[in-house]
Amino acid sequence: MIEKYLTMAVDLQKKARLVRKWSLISTTEAGSGHPTSCLSAADIMTILFDKYYTYYLNNPQNIANDRLIFSKGHAAPLFYTLYALAGAFPIEELKTLRKFSSRLEGHQTPEFPYTEAATGSLGQGLSVGAGLALGMQREIKLKKKPKVYVLLGDGEMAEGQIWEAANFAGYYQLDNLIAIVDDNRLGQSQQTMFGHNSQEYVKRLSAFGWEVVTIDGHNLIEIDAAFQKAFQNKSKKPFAIVAVTDKGHGISFLSNKDNWHGKPLPKDKLSDALNELGELKDEVVFSLPKPEVINSSKIITPSSITIPYSIGDQVATREVYGHVLTELGKADESLYVLDAEVKNSTYSIDFLKIYPERFIECFIAEQNMVSVAAGLSRFGKKPFVSTFAAFFTRAFDQIRMAWLSKATIKFVGSHAGVSIGEDGSSQMGLEELSMFGSFPGVTVLQPCDAVSCIKLLDEMSHLPGLAYLQTLRPKTSVIYMKSEKFPIGGSKILKQSSNDLLTVVASGITVSEALKAYDELQKENISIRIIDCYSLVPIDKNSLLASAQATKKNIIITVEDHFVHGGLGDFVSAALADQQIVVEKMAVEKHSHSGLKDELLADAGISADHIVKEVKRLR
Amino acid sequence: MIEKYLTMAVDLQKKARLVRKWSLISTTEAGSGHPTSCLSAADIMTILFDKYYTYYLNNPQNIANDRLIFSKGHAAPLFYTLYALAGAFPIEELKTLRKFSSRLEGHQTPEFPYTEAATGSLGQGLSVGAGLALGMQREIKLKKKPKVYVLLGDGEMAEGQIWEAANFAGYYQLDNLIAIVDDNRLGQSQQTMFGHNSQEYVKRLSAFGWEVVTIDGHNLIEIDAAFQKAFQNKSKKPFAIVAVTDKGHGISFLSNKDNWHGKPLPKDKLSDALNELGELKDEVVFSLPKPEVINSSKIITPSSITIPYSIGDQVATREVYGHVLTELGKADESLYVLDAEVKNSTYSIDFLKIYPERFIECFIAEQNMVSVAAGLSRFGKKPFVSTFAAFFTRAFDQIRMAWLSKATIKFVGSHAGVSIGEDGSSQMGLEELSMFGSFPGVTVLQPCDAVSCIKLLDEMSHLPGLAYLQTLRPKTSVIYMKSEKFPIGGSKILKQSSNDLLTVVASGITVSEALKAYDELQKENISIRIIDCYSLVPIDKNSLLASAQATKKNIIITVEDHFVHGGLGDFVSAALADQQIVVEKMAVEKHSHSGLKDELLADAGISADHIVKEVKRLR
Repeated sequence: MIEKYLTMAVDLQKKARLVRKWSLISTTEAGSGHPTSCLSAADIMTILFDKYYTYYLNNPQNIANDRLIFSKGHAAPLFYTLYALAGAFPIEELKTLRKFSSRLEGHQTPEFPYTEAATGSLGQGLSVGAGLALGMQREIKLKKKPKVYVLLGDGEMAEGQIWEAANFAGYYQLDNLIAIVDDNRLGQSQQTMFGHNSQEYVKRLSAFGWEVVTIDGHNLIEIDAAFQKAFQNKSKKPFAIVAVTDKGHGISFLSNKDNWHGKPLPKDKLSDALNELGELKDEVVFSLPKPEVINSSKIITPSSITIPYSIGDQVATREVYGHVLTELGKADESLYVLDAEVKNSTYSIDFLKIYPERFIECFIAEQNMVSVAAGLSRFGKKPFVSTFAAFFTRAFDQIRMAWLSKATIKFVGSHAGVSIGEDGSSQMGLEELSMFGSFPGVTVLQPCDAVSCIKLLDEMSHLPGLAYLQTLRPKTSVIYMKSEKFPIGGSKILKQSSNDLLTVVASGITVSEALKAYDELQKENISIRIIDCYSLVPIDKNSLLASAQATKKNIIITVEDHFVHGGLGDFVSAALADQQIVVEKMAVEKHSHSGLKDELLADAGISADHIVKEVKRLR
Repeated sequence: MIEKYLTMAVDLQKKARLVRKWSLISTTEAGSGHPTSCLSAADIMTILFDKYYTYYLNNPQNIANDRLIFSKGHAAPLFYTLYALAGAFPIEELKTLRKFSSRLEGHQTPEFPYTEAATGSLGQGLSVGAGLALGMQREIKLKKKPKVYVLLGDGEMAEGQIWEAANFAGYYQLDNLIAIVDDNRLGQSQQTMFGHNSQEYVKRLSAFGWEVVTIDGHNLIEIDAAFQKAFQNKSKKPFAIVAVTDKGHGISFLSNKDNWHGKPLPKDKLSDALNELGELKDEVVFSLPKPEVINSSKIITPSSITIPYSIGDQVATREVYGHVLTELGKADESLYVLDAEVKNSTYSIDFLKIYPERFIECFIAEQNMVSVAAGLSRFGKKPFVSTFAAFFTRAFDQIRMAWLSKATIKFVGSHAGVSIGEDGSSQMGLEELSMFGSFPGVTVLQPCDAVSCIKLLDEMSHLPGLAYLQTLRPKTSVIYMKSEKFPIGGSKILKQSSNDLLTVVASGITVSEALKAYDELQKENISIRIIDCYSLVPIDKNSLLASAQATKKNIIITVEDHFVHGGLGDFVSAALADQQIVVEKMAVEKHSHSGLKDELLADAGISADHIVKEVKRLR
């Protein structure tokens, strides 16, 4: 018995040394990277791959696979090495690490097919893992759910999002989620907040509702026992292994030494290190057991959304959101809805009432919400995510990483702009259209009435990737017939004549202001063209240009309830930058205030009166 | 003795009823607001104002004042009521709540002079409080430091930033920070994560290194005892009072009832409520003890920063940051430096070496870092905040609230754009210039060499409000003489002739690409004008326009290492939107990758070769 253990231990130690060898070789070849951050986790990951990780290499989308996320994305060379040593690709490919032509990037991205989410901005992986684990809990009928493993660094435990995810996982009893804290003590520029005092993490995670064990992360017996305990966990709680490790462990001159963060070994030191590891044969050493293949059950029928509104009805665009989700969710079982505890304001609550099993209350934790959605997307779901428009700024970095992860997520933000009224500036979404527009290829929509909002939500639901739609708090008049079409990338000419002075381009709340201005100007025999530019990205360049050219002045006035930078005016201006068209922007250029909607639109200089004045100024 | 207690209790209960009365009247008058969220905290705040809060009403900037932050900003009517009942302003003014002409906004802003920070985006107040408390610890020599009280809602305890702040306060032993968790159970749309299970908060805060007591938040004796305990706290730990309360407490038909979040009482119900409170005289009932007056000690001497570089030297702009901070910090003792554990990459470490007492290591918790800086700003300090450019996206919402708070903070982000090379997309700042540019009045700078970087850092340090400067990871050639001046809002014409075809506008890393392109084009006798547009906001519109008009084609090409939306190209395009100048943008329009700097600049289409091609295309 003891002999068997010893043989196993020798074998495992050899595998762990091989894992170390390639973490070192690949980074030295690259001339950059974080080898010491790989070495600290090498023993734990060796045991995981040798004994527990169940994964169908030829079918990464199989929903019964276990999942592995390196939240500490800078340990990517270790991640790649593990899959190489499991036979996923030739070991020699590890030497292409960080090269332009390689799929093995400095921090893992979806170019490498086993990447569950792009990481490298710290503190996000646990949320992605929670999204996957929740998807498994809700969708996989097997009694024993697949496991989601998340490798965390001790440095990133300072990120608040970790604790949002920890709360979330505890609350939803994600007992198939296993976090591994690689407590290697050393951060980038100094010791981490708690160094090797692993009890600090044990206390915190326990308080957040986790089962926790702490181990010596280089003791193979302790590591194995920890995984065993995780498998026997009957507590309904998520499970954490806090592993005390040494950064650079396994190489005497690196282990637990300062000033080796993010530095590859120079070639001469590499050979010293390899000598220390001893002779090792480069071969496939991990044989991952295959889970059964389960396909995500989707029923997709064409959606057909009822539109119970007629022209002139007063409806806030936000009010239709839940109704549309419910109709879309009837047609497509992969649709999930997430909200940050404002579901009665965003109206996502209407979906909850019909499909509670596909609604996820994320509480007031926007960062975790977005990364959970990224995890669900990787699980084959189509998440819709809603909160106040302003509060999506809380998750800019998570949206950025979801974009890098090529996730499919639809975002809907309510309470746009100064038009929300009395609640005041902190609740006004005045910058998020620009934020979503930052990322190439992300669709950005801003409907002005209920009919266009319904149609655009329907269309956006069928888009791949990320898309954003902004809804309004106040009621606006329905101005479109039910039969009207709203292609993404299109626009609507609401008023035109052969005698137009110039073109006013509006979107969202400002469309009604523009129409009021039109009526005023008509009284003075001034004709203007009005365009509802409901699609900001992609934008209807041709129509904008044609309208501008068809008017006497070749001028476009843009008017928007958004800060002047990066919104409608800039989208229009950018589209026409290579044309000799003058664009005059009307937008919010200062702090707003509490007050009545109309007071605030006037104060911001974007009301009908201001449009009238601006048109006359340019006459 | 008992009699005395009873008299005190009756008196306090009356005051608490008066606080409730005006929380109700003001919101009913406003027709909106969150009265029930005020009522839950009314008893605790009554005791605080009656007995403990030490504040010089006529001198809110006095650094020896206690401070009070309502992190649950929607309880603003309670906040205003407390100050009114302390005699800060006429009680009748409370009836102006949420009106356009009033300084009493829906969520408090600096228009109301006792506001320490604009709140309303939840989960930020504890960090601001930590910034104030840390400032007091480091700057006030009194043995007994002033106290910072932060009122938190139970809903916002789900925000990760709370736990970033909790860690920070524990780590820095901020024993003058007192958090009060108003555990009123009910969120906006449902029960909060843990409802009235206050032990969940006790466990978490204790694990994060806090002294914690839990009390009945409506029992005046228990409240008083909790404050007493906070004052006797000798543990060096921050102190938390977790108060179990009822939302709407004090009014029978509101107390602990669903569906009253964010709803004022209709007038008829208001009179029922006021009847329930009984007859109350509207008078000043709180008399705040005044602390001594202490002025923030600042020595400001003119800064004169040595520039140890000559033309042609190879220096990364990030490398000069710490040096400049050290020189500025010598001249101005109010300068503080904060970094998110990348100080050896941003080079803020050079300041730490000389002035450790004014350096704050914030670890990997960017949200808390920014809000701590807002607290320090309110304390009269001038914080410089640095991390990787990309990771400022993590704190977009905190920057937004710092802007609403009218804070003075300087942000410096390193590792800009694809030019960082091998680390890959997750580490590339490609959207943050747009992000900082979102807020009207925020200065945005992007120097291309060490000399301009030094001069611009010096200038930005003297600006009020928020400002951002981006530094580069790779070394670039020094192209400017030490004597050169770089006014904010200016630009530099680097190449010009009377025969220029068009103008290329660059900034940061692309300046050297533009200069290389110039040399190439000269070989073919094509002259172009080159502008270093180091100041994106404000931008040098006049010079850009004059240059465009002086060239044959009236065309400007912008070239930038930033996503196409919202960066240099859009700033230029926006500045010239009202002119008939064609702007052609060259920018990053897709995911980038790991690779060499030059490979990535070429891949993104912003290298010298691409500029040459674009010039020729437009010829």
